[in-house]
Amino acid sequence: MTYFADIPAIRYEGPQSDNPLAFRHYDAERVVLGKSMRDHLRWAVCYWHSFAWAGHDIFGAPTFERPWHPGTPATPELAQVKLDNAFDFFAKLGAPFYCFHDVDAMADHASIAAYSRELEAIADKMENKVAETGVQLLWGTANLFSHPRYAAGAATNPDPQIFAWAAHQVCSMLDVTHRLGGANYVLWGGREGYDTILNTNQAQELDQLGRFMAMVVEHKHKIGFDGAILIEPKPHEPTKHQYDRDTATVYGFLKRYGLEDEIQVNIEANHATLAGNTFEHEIATANALGIFGSIDINRGDPQNGWDTDQFPSNVPEMTLAMYHVLKGGGFSTGGFNFDAKLRRQSVDAEDLFHAHIGGVDVLAKALLNAAAIIKDGTLDRFVEDRYAGWSGSFGESILAGELTLAKAADHAVKSNSDPQPVSGRQEYLENLINRFV
Amino acid sequence: MTYFADIPAIRYEGPQSDNPLAFRHYDAERVVLGKSMRDHLRWAVCYWHSFAWAGHDIFGAPTFERPWHPGTPATPELAQVKLDNAFDFFAKLGAPFYCFHDVDAMADHASIAAYSRELEAIADKMENKVAETGVQLLWGTANLFSHPRYAAGAATNPDPQIFAWAAHQVCSMLDVTHRLGGANYVLWGGREGYDTILNTNQAQELDQLGRFMAMVVEHKHKIGFDGAILIEPKPHEPTKHQYDRDTATVYGFLKRYGLEDEIQVNIEANHATLAGNTFEHEIATANALGIFGSIDINRGDPQNGWDTDQFPSNVPEMTLAMYHVLKGGGFSTGGFNFDAKLRRQSVDAEDLFHAHIGGVDVLAKALLNAAAIIKDGTLDRFVEDRYAGWSGSFGESILAGELTLAKAADHAVKSNSDPQPVSGRQEYLENLINRFV
Amino acid sequence: MTYFADIPAIRYEGPQSDNPLAFRHYDAERVVLGKSMRDHLRWAVCYWHSFAWAGHDIFGAPTFERPWHPGTPATPELAQVKLDNAFDFFAKLGAPFYCFHDVDAMADHASIAAYSRELEAIADKMENKVAETGVQLLWGTANLFSHPRYAAGAATNPDPQIFAWAAHQVCSMLDVTHRLGGANYVLWGGREGYDTILNTNQAQELDQLGRFMAMVVEHKHKIGFDGAILIEPKPHEPTKHQYDRDTATVYGFLKRYGLEDEIQVNIEANHATLAGNTFEHEIATANALGIFGSIDINRGDPQNGWDTDQFPSNVPEMTLAMYHVLKGGGFSTGGFNFDAKLRRQSVDAEDLFHAHIGGVDVLAKALLNAAAIIKDGTLDRFVEDRYAGWSGSFGESILAGELTLAKAADHAVKSNSDPQPVSGRQEYLENLINRFV
Amino acid sequence: MTYFADIPAIRYEGPQSDNPLAFRHYDAERVVLGKSMRDHLRWAVCYWHSFAWAGHDIFGAPTFERPWHPGTPATPELAQVKLDNAFDFFAKLGAPFYCFHDVDAMADHASIAAYSRELEAIADKMENKVAETGVQLLWGTANLFSHPRYAAGAATNPDPQIFAWAAHQVCSMLDVTHRLGGANYVLWGGREGYDTILNTNQAQELDQLGRFMAMVVEHKHKIGFDGAILIEPKPHEPTKHQYDRDTATVYGFLKRYGLEDEIQVNIEANHATLAGNTFEHEIATANALGIFGSIDINRGDPQNGWDTDQFPSNVPEMTLAMYHVLKGGGFSTGGFNFDAKLRRQSVDAEDLFHAHIGGVDVLAKALLNAAAIIKDGTLDRFVEDRYAGWSGSFGESILAGELTLAKAADHAVKSNSDPQPVSGRQEYLENLINRFV
Repeated sequence: MTYFADIPAIRYEGPQSDNPLAFRHYDAERVVLGKSMRDHLRWAVCYWHSFAWAGHDIFGAPTFERPWHPGTPATPELAQVKLDNAFDFFAKLGAPFYCFHDVDAMADHASIAAYSRELEAIADKMENKVAETGVQLLWGTANLFSHPRYAAGAATNPDPQIFAWAAHQVCSMLDVTHRLGGANYVLWGGREGYDTILNTNQAQELDQLGRFMAMVVEHKHKIGFDGAILIEPKPHEPTKHQYDRDTATVYGFLKRYGLEDEIQVNIEANHATLAGNTFEHEIATANALGIFGSIDINRGDPQNGWDTDQFPSNVPEMTLAMYHVLKGGGFSTGGFNFDAKLRRQSVDAEDLFHAHIGGVDVLAKALLNAAAIIKDGTLDRFVEDRYAGWSGSFGESILAGELTLAKAADHAVKSNSDPQPVSGRQEYLENLINRFV
Repeated sequence: MTYFADIPAIRYEGPQSDNPLAFRHYDAERVVLGKSMRDHLRWAVCYWHSFAWAGHDIFGAPTFERPWHPGTPATPELAQVKLDNAFDFFAKLGAPFYCFHDVDAMADHASIAAYSRELEAIADKMENKVAETGVQLLWGTANLFSHPRYAAGAATNPDPQIFAWAAHQVCSMLDVTHRLGGANYVLWGGREGYDTILNTNQAQELDQLGRFMAMVVEHKHKIGFDGAILIEPKPHEPTKHQYDRDTATVYGFLKRYGLEDEIQVNIEANHATLAGNTFEHEIATANALGIFGSIDINRGDPQNGWDTDQFPSNVPEMTLAMYHVLKGGGFSTGGFNFDAKLRRQSVDAEDLFHAHIGGVDVLAKALLNAAAIIKDGTLDRFVEDRYAGWSGSFGESILAGELTLAKAADHAVKSNSDPQPVSGRQEYLENLINRFV
Repeated sequence: MTYFADIPAIRYEGPQSDNPLAFRHYDAERVVLGKSMRDHLRWAVCYWHSFAWAGHDIFGAPTFERPWHPGTPATPELAQVKLDNAFDFFAKLGAPFYCFHDVDAMADHASIAAYSRELEAIADKMENKVAETGVQLLWGTANLFSHPRYAAGAATNPDPQIFAWAAHQVCSMLDVTHRLGGANYVLWGGREGYDTILNTNQAQELDQLGRFMAMVVEHKHKIGFDGAILIEPKPHEPTKHQYDRDTATVYGFLKRYGLEDEIQVNIEANHATLAGNTFEHEIATANALGIFGSIDINRGDPQNGWDTDQFPSNVPEMTLAMYHVLKGGGFSTGGFNFDAKLRRQSVDAEDLFHAHIGGVDVLAKALLNAAAIIKDGTLDRFVEDRYAGWSGSFGESILAGELTLAKAADHAVKSNSDPQPVSGRQEYLENLINRFV
Repeated sequence: MTYFADIPAIRYEGPQSDNPLAFRHYDAERVVLGKSMRDHLRWAVCYWHSFAWAGHDIFGAPTFERPWHPGTPATPELAQVKLDNAFDFFAKLGAPFYCFHDVDAMADHASIAAYSRELEAIADKMENKVAETGVQLLWGTANLFSHPRYAAGAATNPDPQIFAWAAHQVCSMLDVTHRLGGANYVLWGGREGYDTILNTNQAQELDQLGRFMAMVVEHKHKIGFDGAILIEPKPHEPTKHQYDRDTATVYGFLKRYGLEDEIQVNIEANHATLAGNTFEHEIATANALGIFGSIDINRGDPQNGWDTDQFPSNVPEMTLAMYHVLKGGGFSTGGFNFDAKLRRQSVDAEDLFHAHIGGVDVLAKALLNAAAIIKDGTLDRFVEDRYAGWSGSFGESILAGELTLAKAADHAVKSNSDPQPVSGRQEYLENLINRFV
């Protein structure tokens, strides 16, 4: 009997339902733009916030009383209880995917040998769970930021022995991810940055990180893992500055180390806004640069300056993000991972259901809206028309590299050019979007 | 008789002076680390804030009553008055350099032909001024953001005719900069970004911008200009999002278009903080990525979210920035341009002197402090020692690409590795810095 | 023939309409919770952004070419053209109200005598317009921040002569507002704060401001104006710090000067978020403190740190604000004033219509949503139940002041109290709201 | 033998010292403006960050290995070890004061009876320590935010039983503070606010908080405690919104509940900047409103949006704060409490010394600088002269309430008033300050 025994499996009941334990928009098999909602969204529950975190914050103690949280250390028995409950939750929710860090799922361990032993132990059990339930692994990852050894970073640590420990974790978890049939492998550089620039050699650390990423890519190919390797950008927190600031920064890093065709980004909504970008900007940028991979879906708090990791709730905002996902062709190996956590006061079992149901419904409604915008075509045509000049002979000759600066300048002078501003129609376009949300 | 007639030439009087119209730290010929202060700082007065701007803000009318601001349009006669006063100011202040946009200095103009005519007219006069006074041009630039035609960008405009107008301005101003013996040419992408992502094709616009930059570089080589081409990063304002967000973003852009050896960054302190970075971070990053060029020196307001462009005043903060400038080898063609403006209430002629004197003194004191830190050597040794492990055989083999991920992992496993955190000594280092500021 | 001649009067066409020049949700006579939409929303067009501002920003020149913007000075003839066009716009849009500052509508003037003369002249004409069109004045106000004399504040200026000038403007405009049948009078303290604390005596300035507000209240009663006097909070911009930071701060100010029963707040959405509050928080706080008056409706940009004054577009966010407006009993004299401006690229006449139509529709849809939430009752019951303990005898005895600290403590000790956390159900409530938006 | 056995007592060695374990500016007995440095600064070490916190952050485990941190629960024996080490640290550092929350110092406890028992037990021991060492209690406080029972607030909790638990803690700790000779009692409303406005009745919660504060004040008088009661403002974190946002907000709250003569503010530097204010603004505001009490001294990170609680390091910034402390007459019962924590990587015993030594030296140097500014008098005279007009007959008649709005307006009209802007001299004043820092 699991912790969630009293809660029934969650079903689709349609927009009019007032059952808080039912989906109102997410109808897994419903076909939208030629693909089922399930296949569009490829959504996942994350182990860490939903099963490893116990409700503490920096000012307060844990508030969640789960049967797998009786204190420390976490024994293999408790890891089993957690695993059973997690997959029970995934199944009741109808989640097609889940995600986890090594340490989220495994028992505590005091040495590198014990790490390997406990990771293998839980991986064996998890493999069975995956087979039993059909819930798939969207991505695996290794936690390279919580243990004190990583206080000064993992790959960017001043101590190469710590780099090696990190290599062991990533190597192990990439193998486990491969074994479990994971669709991707993610690297979030939690402390790959600095707390103070005073003690930091940035060029040195970037080279360490570049080499580490290359080693991961090489290992992927060696073992025949055909999922994507993904970097998750974040500007800061816990560090003062994290090297993988945002998508454009990660692109520059990848280009510097020749990895732009091997690694993509896992964009998190809350990280995007912490970096001063909109969520949709990050998706559009990844599309433009050819490195879009996957999404950690959540939201931040515009009035608070840290990673609040709330469940998404605003459908119009999500519609813009979904529009850009669809415009980029949708997910290949990626998906929407709910890297979102309950509020600390939401202590009940059903709160975990409410949160995910609400989040999935926001994605589903946003998908319907974005598909409607695309089918309508007005927005796409507007943008295409706006740049029509660049498909003319003069515009094409510029982009083709046929004109020097002086030649382009002469063109303006000779035609006594006096181009007038054309309305950007922002308010019209905002109203247009509101017709579909 | 100029507007500044009552104010005497500014001299160095030493730290004990209480004369508000004297330098307390800037002693141009004083040698620091083997170079004169003047040659270290290569500071410049900017034309736009100090001579073109009349004290308006978005909520209020101009407050400065200068003889060259009698209204619009600005006639050639008024441009002459402005030029005379500007060079009188530069000379009285002892400024080694100045900077300007085309439209800062020239008369108003209603056509592209008039643009060319008026620009040539003022360039001729300015050439004489440079020769007379010995004040040099640190960099020239073209204003591609104030005219209504640039409301939707210049190089990234949806209209290629506007691209061509921009090409004409940049081509003209690069020629003028070359003729005036300018040390650099700067491109600030004031509206190269978007107001709303709804009407924007980012991939298209990036390609336009990439081609534009390449054209500028080609033109530079064609005319034999041997100064640097510089991009000035800024995250937003006036646009919602500017493509040249920060140094790391610009690096990625340059790599994408193969320009990383041709273009460097002109880092502005206030733009750095608007982008969520420290000023010293941007300098250190540019050094690490090999694209450090020049600096626009000012400061923002940590409580306000727009480009306040205040004169720098905090010596400890500036010391950290100066330390990284020196660690990178100091300026080659670049320098410190005071892209800083008076507060709107500072309406008197002497306020313009106070502001620059204070700013130059902050730079000078920061230079002395940073040089002392370097001479002391404790900080540098601390950082070097911190990474010493990477000079050992294991660290070197990693960086040399000799180890696979599995091999590095094996190293940790076989040694039963249990590396312990080492103090990062942040507070010690902050105290150390305080010994020198 | 007006500037808007080609644009037809705007009608309600229903949610399915794809006519960008029609309302989809705003059906003026539709009754919601016992009152027409018009009477709920009491919406107004503002003169300043829509008719006085010409599309400049701090980095660029005006982009709007309106027949009433031919340059400076603004003659009485141009003021007439502007007035005619403004009321034509109000009427076509079906706006029940408008708002203006003295200087928005009147001709330029070079002396205090000319000020009075031109203000009276335009007030006469406006009085006729109001009578002709039936468009009412929601509120009047005086611009105490644009003229150079107010660079250091109006009521808080170090110069009492400037205080007196401000008194003249406010006295005149309060009289004009009264004469025009205005429903309220607003004071936004644009520069009532400081640019630098170094030159500022805050206690002195607060006393000046307190006295000024008292004088305005006394004058209101003297002339028999029965509209509300409203202060509009804003944290900064153009000043570094504005004394009327947010609603709670204004409340403290009013209490200090004994004005809390005489003055209410005019809450602006974008000012709320600039101050680090949500818009709905400010409304709820004003309700809790008993000083809710009116609303300036717009939105800011969460990624940009200045007053962007965009037209509202997010219905779920607006629904929360509207819910609190309704919970507080709705507007008495206040209303929703569109203190919102076009984007600088939106240069066409129709853009001004799109912007207002979209904004009004967002308000209308939010009103329908909020009314549905209230009719449903689940949310209200949830909150009531959550605090039920305070209606019990122990809770009541505390609030009634019947228990000392020691007595309340004894109660806990004697009962060996061990109260458990109760779920706050945040995610459930967010999902609940999503059923209605 | 304590944890700090290898570290000698810290002495003053003067500005030239390069001993990182010596004071360079803090010379306790040195007289500045008629009072010793010790008596000016009244500085305190805090128990929580320095002795209760073990180096964890929200993404990582504890990094500090102190002999009093062996895990949970904290036994009375461990509490004793912590107490011995804490007072050893205070004494070696020469700290005149310390501060603590109940739970920082006491053993863990599972019931309200055990709470009382363990608190009394540690209070007895602490009383002896205070007597032995002469280190005084600057202020005591109760932790009303870490235990799960306080997840929804303490005084503002929806459950009055939790209010009663909080009453017991505050009653007990106020008694303990009184017994230990504490100079003040502080209330930080850690969760007195809300996580979501959706489940919150703000008016209800404010009334609860108002009554709670009144009960505390009444208890203080009952037991004869003559220290100050202090509220510590903070805008958010851990909650989304905290009612005690900043000094001006607290003032309004105190006025609302008639407590403005009974309660003052304990201003924290990092809370000030999180609220969008400068630190010196908060001090100046508290002076202007008559509620200045004490200071929690630390600093935030301008690029990060949470409470980083770093040790202060910037002398010019601190000088401005100190200037306002001195202008307000200095501390009465208050002092500078180092509510600052080590960086998580600073794991060594000596790091705790470096941090406090550096912080105390920053205060000491700032005190010397601020005293010099005051002795010089230029700044004070400038400000006085700036407002001189308000000491004239017209200014005085306004402030005395002798003029109506219309009379003040007439004054301007009759004199054909055309007051000109006067330079605010911001840059001059910034340079002036730089002469003293």
